[in-house]
Amino acid sequence: MSTPAAEELLPPKLSRRWHYAREQAISFLMQQAVENPDVISLAAGLVDSETLPVAETRAAVQKVLEDHGSGKMALQYGTTAGSERLRRLLLAHFGQLEGCDPHDLGVDAGQLVVTTGSQQLLSLVCEILLDPGDICLVAGPTYFVFVGNLNGVGAEIVTIPSDDDGMQTGALEAALQQLEAEGRLDRVKLIYAVSYYDNPSGRSLSTERRQQIVDIAHRWSKHHRLFVLEDAAYRELRYDGETLPSVWSFDETRQTVIYTQTFSKSYSPGLRIGFGVLPRDLVKPVCDRKGNEDFGSANFNQHILATVLESGLYDSHVEQVCAAYRIKRDAMLAAADRWFADLPGVSWVHPHGGLYVWMSLPPQIQTGFKSELFRRAVEEGVMYVPGELCYASPLDERPRSEMRLSYGVQPPEGIEEGMRRLSVAVRSMLVSR
Amino acid sequence: MSTPAAEELLPPKLSRRWHYAREQAISFLMQQAVENPDVISLAAGLVDSETLPVAETRAAVQKVLEDHGSGKMALQYGTTAGSERLRRLLLAHFGQLEGCDPHDLGVDAGQLVVTTGSQQLLSLVCEILLDPGDICLVAGPTYFVFVGNLNGVGAEIVTIPSDDDGMQTGALEAALQQLEAEGRLDRVKLIYAVSYYDNPSGRSLSTERRQQIVDIAHRWSKHHRLFVLEDAAYRELRYDGETLPSVWSFDETRQTVIYTQTFSKSYSPGLRIGFGVLPRDLVKPVCDRKGNEDFGSANFNQHILATVLESGLYDSHVEQVCAAYRIKRDAMLAAADRWFADLPGVSWVHPHGGLYVWMSLPPQIQTGFKSELFRRAVEEGVMYVPGELCYASPLDERPRSEMRLSYGVQPPEGIEEGMRRLSVAVRSMLVSR
Repeated sequence: MSTPAAEELLPPKLSRRWHYAREQAISFLMQQAVENPDVISLAAGLVDSETLPVAETRAAVQKVLEDHGSGKMALQYGTTAGSERLRRLLLAHFGQLEGCDPHDLGVDAGQLVVTTGSQQLLSLVCEILLDPGDICLVAGPTYFVFVGNLNGVGAEIVTIPSDDDGMQTGALEAALQQLEAEGRLDRVKLIYAVSYYDNPSGRSLSTERRQQIVDIAHRWSKHHRLFVLEDAAYRELRYDGETLPSVWSFDETRQTVIYTQTFSKSYSPGLRIGFGVLPRDLVKPVCDRKGNEDFGSANFNQHILATVLESGLYDSHVEQVCAAYRIKRDAMLAAADRWFADLPGVSWVHPHGGLYVWMSLPPQIQTGFKSELFRRAVEEGVMYVPGELCYASPLDERPRSEMRLSYGVQPPEGIEEGMRRLSVAVRSMLVSR
Repeated sequence: MSTPAAEELLPPKLSRRWHYAREQAISFLMQQAVENPDVISLAAGLVDSETLPVAETRAAVQKVLEDHGSGKMALQYGTTAGSERLRRLLLAHFGQLEGCDPHDLGVDAGQLVVTTGSQQLLSLVCEILLDPGDICLVAGPTYFVFVGNLNGVGAEIVTIPSDDDGMQTGALEAALQQLEAEGRLDRVKLIYAVSYYDNPSGRSLSTERRQQIVDIAHRWSKHHRLFVLEDAAYRELRYDGETLPSVWSFDETRQTVIYTQTFSKSYSPGLRIGFGVLPRDLVKPVCDRKGNEDFGSANFNQHILATVLESGLYDSHVEQVCAAYRIKRDAMLAAADRWFADLPGVSWVHPHGGLYVWMSLPPQIQTGFKSELFRRAVEEGVMYVPGELCYASPLDERPRSEMRLSYGVQPPEGIEEGMRRLSVAVRSMLVSR
């Protein structure tokens, strides 16, 4: 037969799953950044380049590869769940964060799974737990990539309002009552919470609410176990304020909270290492699924991180990173005071850690990609993440006048200048009305 | 409320998808290996530890991290599709394998996607293409992890018999006719072929059949485009015999064959880097899905591999690796001659590359995990992969008397001894009947 011309070919027929997941706001943002290279991005969630651990990683790799035996071990396949050595060190590290001897944690290294960033753990949990139409409860606003994961498996998302103490537990309880009244409680599988210095809002769940969320999950496990997915991605980026216990720590059963954390923010995103602490009966399902996806994240990187943790280089690096981000957070808050304090109806969150300042504008100023403000901001040379992207509710029910501002990438001068430019755009919207 | 006791908790309700994917033979094999540490494994598909590129990787990392600028770039987030620099080098490398100037390949670096091993690419293709009940045609035997991927998305698998020239194209054509007659052609989405030194059979598709498979995909694209997924994982592990053109090279449209390869076999599985060369209209779907799963494989490793490719260290390493495997393949074939030649009804494939020898026993000797032979083999101190795991058809329709024997991990002496032990077990089965 003769080969068909490329334009004669029929189109592919893609899966429903792909259709669920096809709209990703992040693509538009990255395209904007590429097309506008002179723009100061307060949008990107990347980490500060200056503090990346080049010397630490060099030392660790040197150590891993200087011995031919350990070098070969690091360059060979690992296992799906991750390197034993790293998992033991992660357990010790987790114990340290929990203020607890690893032997008293009530979990063992076999319940830790190493993933390609904590993102993969979030994705795996959705895959093994959620059928189309199953329900996950999330805070509004919430981490927008996770909304993509939920959409990707066809889950239904119920948004729980949040305030300065995070997800409102009264509203969470009410939502579950409502779902039960509708006869849909059997579809509820998961409560998702970014527990420390939330992406996007910068807020943390209060201690009291941490306990309450666990209690609610236990109490509402009427048809099957209702899990809490605690995303502690920013836990170690703490600059001041109290040291909060994890949501996980309140789950005395150890069978209800799925805990996940990443080294992307506190060490290096280029290594792409995250981990999950799993209730015992989710270990095999998660590993089965991960076996299908990639049968193990890069083993080499796991040996590097293990060496970094073992050597103490990690702890000192986290101190440095926090010192650098503290300065940048202060720079953003100072710039906000300087440029926005006199604007009526503008307010923002003062985070104690993490990478984000959440700013609210008067309701008449929309902030979306297609808004006049976004256009003016890009024209002034600054970019932010529209707050409406961080909600899962129907567009007309979302707050439309919020912005996520990141101080992760820019140096203090860039933060100052970016905030000044943003204030020019916002001011022009206030004046022109 | 009081916390429930762990044993009072209701069980989780997992997703249908997890149920699709929950049985993974690899787990049993790994468990056997752990429980029987003195056993010589001819089962493991790991690569030869002795040839792992410790010095090459050390040199590359040194180069990546010696400069603070390039070091920071490697330790920062990358993009979902992979590092631009690596993708350009991969295009050049792919051109080299195709014997073609990269500019004349008819694809650009934007159509290359870097993944966590080629395994992730295989998984992503299933995710974006296959709904439950959609059909994929595979050779029998075929790569058993991919069967897990197909099961994982609820796909139906149609097995096409194969011979020394790989998947039989006459049978492929007949199967499509049959599916059309059943009114199910609209569910057929994909033809999967391990084109070089197949895992598990060690055989390659003949040149003629490569062309025919592409023609068949074009001709049978009646409802939507029918894709061919060419898994070229072992392409560079060629020890002798002719250099075969890829299936991809026969697809003049460049829109029908999805090509994937990995550096796990030819360089290091610990880096976990594979890539796909995608038809243009699959790039966004694959990246959307990958964005959800992990938004990018480890950037650090991509910079290392780029440096290895750029420096020429890669080509010389592949030569070394092939020289080492050639010796081990010869050792296994010589041992097969020595220990099995006089056994009636025993035959095996002579591979020109890859990691596997496929051995067939008389039909009365079953080889499965629960077979007497498997038990006796472990008792003798040797392990293999039962051939029946490499078929997707119902168990009673599968050949039950085949074995996949790998010369990847063992040194020549271990191969010799493993084959001797295996022959003792097989001989005992022949005698005892």
